[in-house]
Amino acid sequence: MRFPVVFYVLTVSLGFLCVLFVCLWSGIWRGGFAWDGSFLQFNWHPVLMVTSLVVLYGNAILIYRLPLSWSKWWSKLTHAGLLFVALVLSVLGLRAAFDFHTANNIPHLYSLHSWTGISTVALFTLQWFVGLCAFLLPWTPLAFRACLKPLHIWMGIAIFVLSLVTSLSGINEKLLLTLNGRNGSNTEPYTALPAEALFANSLGIVLVIFGLLVLKFLFSKTWKNPEFENDTDTPLLNDAR
Amino acid sequence: MRFPVVFYVLTVSLGFLCVLFVCLWSGIWRGGFAWDGSFLQFNWHPVLMVTSLVVLYGNAILIYRLPLSWSKWWSKLTHAGLLFVALVLSVLGLRAAFDFHTANNIPHLYSLHSWTGISTVALFTLQWFVGLCAFLLPWTPLAFRACLKPLHIWMGIAIFVLSLVTSLSGINEKLLLTLNGRNGSNTEPYTALPAEALFANSLGIVLVIFGLLVLKFLFSKTWKNPEFENDTDTPLLNDAR
Repeated sequence: MRFPVVFYVLTVSLGFLCVLFVCLWSGIWRGGFAWDGSFLQFNWHPVLMVTSLVVLYGNAILIYRLPLSWSKWWSKLTHAGLLFVALVLSVLGLRAAFDFHTANNIPHLYSLHSWTGISTVALFTLQWFVGLCAFLLPWTPLAFRACLKPLHIWMGIAIFVLSLVTSLSGINEKLLLTLNGRNGSNTEPYTALPAEALFANSLGIVLVIFGLLVLKFLFSKTWKNPEFENDTDTPLLNDAR
Repeated sequence: MRFPVVFYVLTVSLGFLCVLFVCLWSGIWRGGFAWDGSFLQFNWHPVLMVTSLVVLYGNAILIYRLPLSWSKWWSKLTHAGLLFVALVLSVLGLRAAFDFHTANNIPHLYSLHSWTGISTVALFTLQWFVGLCAFLLPWTPLAFRACLKPLHIWMGIAIFVLSLVTSLSGINEKLLLTLNGRNGSNTEPYTALPAEALFANSLGIVLVIFGLLVLKFLFSKTWKNPEFENDTDTPLLNDAR
């Protein structure tokens, strides 16, 4: 295995840039953070969703491409651990949006963004629990594990693509609803492409580049770690050796 | 190679359903079609983009998974031909949106949807011409072809994911801008989830399921056609035999 260090550093750096950009957007242009049902609570929503479902999730997938010297068991545990943190943050992110809607009499789950978003978190929750039972608990039959692995990998990729789709439509939706020249808005409209719109659009572009680089890692045959290609035929307790 | 017939039929059927849904949305709920700079010209935009960049593009990718009895040359030609039709339709789809904006004094390319959309078509155009030169013209050095193939495959997937991201944010954007209870809108607002919103949201969900099924075909090792796995080491003229 020939590990592409520069490419990996670039991908991880873009992930950090996404988190930085979304924090600056919510923290500076959208007025900061609170947990009181106001639009300041909503500001947690993009920060938590981008951080969890795109950046942490993407990095958790990449664990299986790293040339780590530790055992498979630790790689699996790190993968599951990072994804657990991502899951908790994504549920908090949903809560931020739901609380804001409830406090301001805005219906829940009407937009296509919300439909793909809630599907992403539901599938992610299911995937995490099934993954835990199938690949970390030692009493799972190996035949079942081998059978599930291709589905687990595809579902993992599908959830990541859904996260990208949802994040981009969410940024677009937020800008359309906020920079609309109405409701006492003190900014220029989205159509005039003010600095905030340029910044948040750039966040969307960086996010999608990060996502496509993660997919490049997943698709490249030469970047696969042979350690993980045939691990379903060995018991988990052997992996821990 | 074990070709998953049922899965393929399901994928192609969902593609047809996407085209049907987007035609019905534009044709019935949005008032039909014209080419006069009005919103009726804009109605071509979702129809042409979904048909070209998602459905035709997805089917063109799947050519390389089909157990076809014809030669590699014909597979390549069908792949390039389908993508050429997709490219022409996508340019017409862009034109429909640009003409509508110009006629109604709406700025071009301000939203994140438009940024990812224009990037998708630009990358697609580049990919098509580079693909033509590298894989269809007989005088391309085989070493160059072998070197380019992984990049061509990844770029192809990246453009498809970008198309999905752009389509979903576009449907969301259209519904937010149209079902807004303003501008003499005679429909209920998006937040009340009228029949049109339910229908167009469902189109988005079917689109994303179609896209994820295409990605499943691309990722599944067991569904790969061995004919195409090592074709860079044979001259094109041999392929045509």
